[in-house]
Amino acid sequence: MGRIRKKVGTKEELLSYSPPIALNPETNKGKWRAYFGNSNPIHIEIGTGKGTFITTLASRNPEINYLGFEKVEEVLLLATKKAINLNLKNMGFIWGDVSDILEYFAPEEIDRLYINFCDPWPKKRHEKRRLTYRDFLDFYQQILKPEGEIHYKTDNEGLFQSSLNEFCHRKWNLKNISLNLYKDLPEDNVATEYETKFVGKGSSIFRLEANIPD
Amino acid sequence: MGRIRKKVGTKEELLSYSPPIALNPETNKGKWRAYFGNSNPIHIEIGTGKGTFITTLASRNPEINYLGFEKVEEVLLLATKKAINLNLKNMGFIWGDVSDILEYFAPEEIDRLYINFCDPWPKKRHEKRRLTYRDFLDFYQQILKPEGEIHYKTDNEGLFQSSLNEFCHRKWNLKNISLNLYKDLPEDNVATEYETKFVGKGSSIFRLEANIPD
Repeated sequence: MGRIRKKVGTKEELLSYSPPIALNPETNKGKWRAYFGNSNPIHIEIGTGKGTFITTLASRNPEINYLGFEKVEEVLLLATKKAINLNLKNMGFIWGDVSDILEYFAPEEIDRLYINFCDPWPKKRHEKRRLTYRDFLDFYQQILKPEGEIHYKTDNEGLFQSSLNEFCHRKWNLKNISLNLYKDLPEDNVATEYETKFVGKGSSIFRLEANIPD
Repeated sequence: MGRIRKKVGTKEELLSYSPPIALNPETNKGKWRAYFGNSNPIHIEIGTGKGTFITTLASRNPEINYLGFEKVEEVLLLATKKAINLNLKNMGFIWGDVSDILEYFAPEEIDRLYINFCDPWPKKRHEKRRLTYRDFLDFYQQILKPEGEIHYKTDNEGLFQSSLNEFCHRKWNLKNISLNLYKDLPEDNVATEYETKFVGKGSSIFRLEANIPD
């Protein structure tokens, strides 16, 4: 996303949309199916940004519950408004930091986790901040079901290289690895805001799916 | 390699260099350490081409035995002459096809296997011919020691993508994956003839190391 100017009153407006904002998400830990009122699968997106990706999926797949995870309030407000405009009943948002993800989800509570175009943190000394760093993968492994998986996209070659090595280091099972997604674009691909922008500039998009270690 | 005109008498000249050509390599199956007269590790290169890579390694590492595997006689002749000129005692060549590799090596006889810039066979209907196709990986797994590994390089993005998926499909353990080898070139990198040419043209070089499945 581009830089977004902080507006006065954003936080108050954001919190007025409850639901779909899940206030105090830690109180829903282990109870997200009750939150949605059904036993459907739960898919979450880490860093949901302006929400085009997750709200599109939620519109297409009413039999799946979606949670968007975002720490920046200004973009989360935009995502929230999208969900309200689309009248989505299977969509919630968590205003929080991924470092706290184990406070929000119980073991094996999640069926799928999306990570799209996260911050590449290109400097070696910042590698622990990358959302595919091994410590984060260990978090995700805890909250995912045994058959659960991560779907991951980025336009950043260095980040994707780092991610491949981290997933392999932790012995995740990788599949459908693509080094140029748009060369043979899957029919069901949903583009994020970033993706549309970078593909327009001629960037390659990298993608993989990862199942938790055996 | 570029196309090389077939010269009259190539075969006869090639076979006159025995050693380092290992004639009837199937008779050495399970006995390659005796062939070299020591118990040093054995590293092989599949598709050794004109031999710059493997003869350079053999010069640098006298405590390792090297075998170059090549089916095209004209280039194997050039590789053989390189080894003779360098007076290498730890270097042999097999004139053969990788499809027959299980006839030449016993289970767990090999410590490391190099695959460099193999034919990408870009058409889907030819994928079984790629040297990292799952059936070939199963061959390599049989002849490699439990701690054995493959070191693999290519300049072809589509091939590397296919290779990543094949290695993962067969649950090999990948490490040191690079999507742009020359961005952070390891000090010990030995360039093949192809590699020097393609790097000169600005191509990215992809690389990985793979340990056999647990």
